[in-house]
Amino acid sequence: MRLSKYFIPTLKENPIDAKITSHRLMIRAGIIRQTNSGIYTFLPLGLKILQKISDIIRKNMEEISCNEILMPIIQPKELWLESQRYDSYGQEMLRMNDRHNRDMLFGPTHEEVVTDIFRKNIKSYKDLPKSFYQIQTKFRDEIRPRFGVMRAREFMMKDAYSFDLNFEDAKKTYDDFYKIYFKIFKQLGLNAIAVRADAGAIGGDLSHEFHILAETGESIIYYDRKFEQLKDKITEDNINELQNLYSAADDMYDQSNCSIAKEEVKSHRSIEVGHIFHFGDKYSKALNASVTNKDGKEIYPLMGSYGIGVSRLIAAIIEANNDENGIIWPEEVTPFAVHLINLKPENEECAKICNELYSKLKAKKEILYDDVSGSIGAKLSNADLIGIPEQIILGPKSLKEGCAEIKNRRSGQKKMVKIEELI
Amino acid sequence: MRLSKYFIPTLKENPIDAKITSHRLMIRAGIIRQTNSGIYTFLPLGLKILQKISDIIRKNMEEISCNEILMPIIQPKELWLESQRYDSYGQEMLRMNDRHNRDMLFGPTHEEVVTDIFRKNIKSYKDLPKSFYQIQTKFRDEIRPRFGVMRAREFMMKDAYSFDLNFEDAKKTYDDFYKIYFKIFKQLGLNAIAVRADAGAIGGDLSHEFHILAETGESIIYYDRKFEQLKDKITEDNINELQNLYSAADDMYDQSNCSIAKEEVKSHRSIEVGHIFHFGDKYSKALNASVTNKDGKEIYPLMGSYGIGVSRLIAAIIEANNDENGIIWPEEVTPFAVHLINLKPENEECAKICNELYSKLKAKKEILYDDVSGSIGAKLSNADLIGIPEQIILGPKSLKEGCAEIKNRRSGQKKMVKIEELI
Repeated sequence: MRLSKYFIPTLKENPIDAKITSHRLMIRAGIIRQTNSGIYTFLPLGLKILQKISDIIRKNMEEISCNEILMPIIQPKELWLESQRYDSYGQEMLRMNDRHNRDMLFGPTHEEVVTDIFRKNIKSYKDLPKSFYQIQTKFRDEIRPRFGVMRAREFMMKDAYSFDLNFEDAKKTYDDFYKIYFKIFKQLGLNAIAVRADAGAIGGDLSHEFHILAETGESIIYYDRKFEQLKDKITEDNINELQNLYSAADDMYDQSNCSIAKEEVKSHRSIEVGHIFHFGDKYSKALNASVTNKDGKEIYPLMGSYGIGVSRLIAAIIEANNDENGIIWPEEVTPFAVHLINLKPENEECAKICNELYSKLKAKKEILYDDVSGSIGAKLSNADLIGIPEQIILGPKSLKEGCAEIKNRRSGQKKMVKIEELI
Repeated sequence: MRLSKYFIPTLKENPIDAKITSHRLMIRAGIIRQTNSGIYTFLPLGLKILQKISDIIRKNMEEISCNEILMPIIQPKELWLESQRYDSYGQEMLRMNDRHNRDMLFGPTHEEVVTDIFRKNIKSYKDLPKSFYQIQTKFRDEIRPRFGVMRAREFMMKDAYSFDLNFEDAKKTYDDFYKIYFKIFKQLGLNAIAVRADAGAIGGDLSHEFHILAETGESIIYYDRKFEQLKDKITEDNINELQNLYSAADDMYDQSNCSIAKEEVKSHRSIEVGHIFHFGDKYSKALNASVTNKDGKEIYPLMGSYGIGVSRLIAAIIEANNDENGIIWPEEVTPFAVHLINLKPENEECAKICNELYSKLKAKKEILYDDVSGSIGAKLSNADLIGIPEQIILGPKSLKEGCAEIKNRRSGQKKMVKIEELI
């Protein structure tokens, strides 16, 4: 992509209202812009990162045979009356009337809608287990939106829903998600911890939150020290051990009630990026979504739901990958693999060589090509700010020696490489 | 994809409330399900087709250097007061209050939001021309939603917005979109006609609607017979000629005011799938989005907007590609390339060979693999209903001869092919 045709409105100065690193850098690097309190536009770089994160999630959902669908944003009140959540959900739910004065709402979650689809289309045990997910915009009317996409009102989420015949199967499905969440976060270059959580408005009795450790996180999590070694080698055998290790989200922690000694408990500030729930037949029963079992009896399938905060993950990744000069994207989610920087586009020879390099390299890798005239200092500091992992820097000086400078954004290491070698 | 792990809830009978072919087939083939009046869930097949259509649009938008972004769904009233559209937009706009009682709306279109982003980030003529697009969910509160996704309330749209320095540049941008729209529809396997249109609520003076000819269309379009030959060879030279040929959308047509003889006017029922507008400085002026020109003077960029009805296109494609047995997907947008049908999954030899075929073929093509036990008749009629272009049918009979039957869904032609050849 040629920068001259692209749109990355970088800023030199920190925006005053951005309190945390990721928010500051997302504004400064031209990733997002605020349209309204807690409501953001994803600019080209931001959308590209969202798409990379979504692709990683999609691949992993496919691996556990979870089917992607797209449910509506606007939901009818009636479904929420059936589940008895309409009144209890509170002010976070954005409610409205349509032109015929019917009560509608902007979906903050989709248990009701997915259960409605299930009851209308699945009648037999033969079709189970079944699970569905979507990657979609949600709205939760936070009382004090803050920290950019970290606590936004409109945000992107991956939400999955599972249906099983009995607890044994449902626990297996729950474990599949538990395991694959660690894999997803690892593939995103993140170190995740799962802690026991309160099921809250979703309801239910088995629930874990997934957190990324970060000093700027809004949460504090508590967990058994053993967790960190165990989590990298999850197997069928030790998954229960792992889930049963002491761990607690912020509001669940109480040392006087804690099953292990204080010295064994590690605590850390963190960012919540995922939440999984098993809630049994709460919704299938409320919405009368039964299936016939092998013996011809009607039973209520057991359900779970499984969320990942897709847009919030961008902030979490930045919190874990930055330095004083800007963002450092992990290879897995970087919007471009290489940042080709022409220091003097108005120099004919520079332009010729860079254009040639660009057209050769772009067949193999995603390249951002800075072909715009400007000060060399600004170009280089913008490149560090945007944070693409590899920079190829070319100017009249290096060109005299037939070379380009390659800079690794993370290590800061630079080396001169012959242009022929690059091609 | 193994059908046993997937979700295609097909129906034998036509749903009573579905009046047109595409709506009937989308329900029967398990592509969509209604959640509420004019509000649909896209099931796995439906979402896959949406994604194929979106990919074709994305590739073409990139070709004309249009930058993909994602603007918010929920917009603040204030922006619409600036453009003076808040009151005039009428009841199609879904309005609501947030918890702090601020007026918000579910975006039916994004001229205001994109102009707001522009004015906050682009200040100089050097950054122009610039255009942006998004593929996103819109809501328009139709008084009588009908025909499935054809006239839905919640739907998916590609909406693009352009900014140019002067009319010459803006016309060039308009023409770029005009041309690439024909290309996009052709790549979707559709025959499009562009007709002069009223700019309506968007405003402006140069506007074309893109229609697909279909007997079940809600519109009637009128156009000069010469159009059909000319449109397949659009060049820089004849684009004005093409745009100036007599053509009219439904509400624009009046034979007494028509510039050509009645015999030269062709009319046809059709489905509107795209709409492009040039509206000059209407929004840039209203929102004071000026840039500095070469002489240091503040000027208002000229804008256009360019829509494609992404979810409606699924219905348009089906209207143009079906027979009495079901859908016939064009290669370009088919959810799967091949439908592998095991007629007797409970037969060990059949299962073995089909599993082998599946694992070999899926490395090269997207395969839907029917591995579910059921009646042979139901399997075959479901395959025709779903409409994947190539069927590979395997049962104990053909297996005895070491063969599979290949059926072309469009032509209906069948041939026996040796299994080794297939592998």
